[in-house]
Amino acid sequence: MNEIVAKVLKGDARSIARLITLAENNDPDVMSAMKDIHPHTGNAYVIGITGVMGSGKSTLIYELTREYRQQGLKVGIIAIDPTSPFSGGALLGDRVRMMELATDDGVFIRSMGTRGMLGGLTSAVYDVVEILDASGKDIVMVETVGIGQAEVDVIKIADTTLVVLVPGLGDSIQTIKAGVMEIADIFVVNKADRSGVEQTIAEIESYIDIANTDRDRKTPVLSTIAKESKGISELIYEIDKHREYLKKTKRFDAQRRKRYEAELVEIIRKRLMDFIFDEPKFTGKVESLIDQMSKKEVDPYTAADEILGKILK
Amino acid sequence: MNEIVAKVLKGDARSIARLITLAENNDPDVMSAMKDIHPHTGNAYVIGITGVMGSGKSTLIYELTREYRQQGLKVGIIAIDPTSPFSGGALLGDRVRMMELATDDGVFIRSMGTRGMLGGLTSAVYDVVEILDASGKDIVMVETVGIGQAEVDVIKIADTTLVVLVPGLGDSIQTIKAGVMEIADIFVVNKADRSGVEQTIAEIESYIDIANTDRDRKTPVLSTIAKESKGISELIYEIDKHREYLKKTKRFDAQRRKRYEAELVEIIRKRLMDFIFDEPKFTGKVESLIDQMSKKEVDPYTAADEILGKILK
Repeated sequence: MNEIVAKVLKGDARSIARLITLAENNDPDVMSAMKDIHPHTGNAYVIGITGVMGSGKSTLIYELTREYRQQGLKVGIIAIDPTSPFSGGALLGDRVRMMELATDDGVFIRSMGTRGMLGGLTSAVYDVVEILDASGKDIVMVETVGIGQAEVDVIKIADTTLVVLVPGLGDSIQTIKAGVMEIADIFVVNKADRSGVEQTIAEIESYIDIANTDRDRKTPVLSTIAKESKGISELIYEIDKHREYLKKTKRFDAQRRKRYEAELVEIIRKRLMDFIFDEPKFTGKVESLIDQMSKKEVDPYTAADEILGKILK
Repeated sequence: MNEIVAKVLKGDARSIARLITLAENNDPDVMSAMKDIHPHTGNAYVIGITGVMGSGKSTLIYELTREYRQQGLKVGIIAIDPTSPFSGGALLGDRVRMMELATDDGVFIRSMGTRGMLGGLTSAVYDVVEILDASGKDIVMVETVGIGQAEVDVIKIADTTLVVLVPGLGDSIQTIKAGVMEIADIFVVNKADRSGVEQTIAEIESYIDIANTDRDRKTPVLSTIAKESKGISELIYEIDKHREYLKKTKRFDAQRRKRYEAELVEIIRKRLMDFIFDEPKFTGKVESLIDQMSKKEVDPYTAADEILGKILK
């Protein structure tokens, strides 16, 4: 394990990939590796990109990555969306673009499924962000579809969050309104060559007028046409501005602190669940309580109390 | 609390609504109420309805409810989707339909947000299903949008799960493919008056041919036009057939057992988290560990160990 960590710290792509796989699989050795990784983290700037399906998030990420690469920055990309071009099932044009990134040593792309992950998506993503951070990436982008609760939780890892919308898609704001609009640090109206762009911007602006609680900063609304590389440098400029704003107002440290808190909560949750449901001395008890619940001999809350009584001091 | 429970068991709508609100708010008295509720549960048949936005899930639920009401059955509806007509923000036609249900004593409708719920969505939904069950509802329908992880987890409460798709919406299968297609007990192609319905059905059929692992039963694909009440009795017939199949093959009890297991896991998770993060004797320790994590003096895993060492036997 020490060897993998040493190689990860040097940016070796194969070792990064291996360590991430171990983290996703909840491998018992990962914990000690993550302990060694942690002191080397904190340098990467994390950008969250969320928005409805079909809003062109991946193309936007591709364009941002190209710009950052031209600035000499190293980029990590985490795609948490089974339909993302980064996850494979994509159109030819997308695949060509992704291939270009995949062959660049300064870019590491990882696609993560949201389902069937035993340890929970969020805790795995924390690990992956730390691994990419320690591996020397200057920018880590996390892409999620802006609808589910777990997906919204994940994006809270980001220092700057972009919410991507498109014109015309009538209910696109409606669709993501609850919970997602609030987390935007920057709104991006992509595919701005489509009709209805002014109306979409106006709707977002009126949302901001009502919802904005931060008196020091108004959430910017940018339009982009990612496929034609339009609006990308303006977007990077706004991301930089947000970053400076966070640092100047001490919000940066406060946000990072929240991220650590969330990470701690996740690890504790995972460890406790493993402890209760994987320990042979408990599983028998758990099974018999579930039987009793099925027969209505015991209610779920009393059953939970019995288990907790056995493990808590 | 005893009084509320007694009224819930008699089906009193106001008491049902009050107890649900208390459960959502994680009220300390709810636990004892839920203990009294539990012995009266297990009669309601739970139908999960999931699918992309705009697939007409709510209209389908409305039509199913009308049919079940004509059979003399009582119906509970839980809408977990901020954009659902059941949650308010709906078109006039939808609102008129919802109003019709709202004034029927044999129907109870509850809309739940997926966000900002401290205790976690899943555990609240378990409570709500138990409350509606104990209140004498024969059918409980749970509506979620079929994309997020939490939303997919929720639908696992159901005895029979409908996955609703629409023709034409090219990527509608693509969109929900990962994770959601698998949970379908019945596929419903709604808005079947639209063009492309044959192709959508063919795509689903070819998915089933590849993915179906249950040799005893092939997942049926039905088409409906919910707005014109078309295909509804056929759908109810298929739901009944699936129910009989579950009972005949003993899968029904196995599924219910899994539901109880998931419920137990949820309650334990919630209780442990409350215990650690709300107990005054721990919060100071937690805060100082987060500070140390921020300064890279301690890694998240070691911090988690320190907390766990204090609470576990």
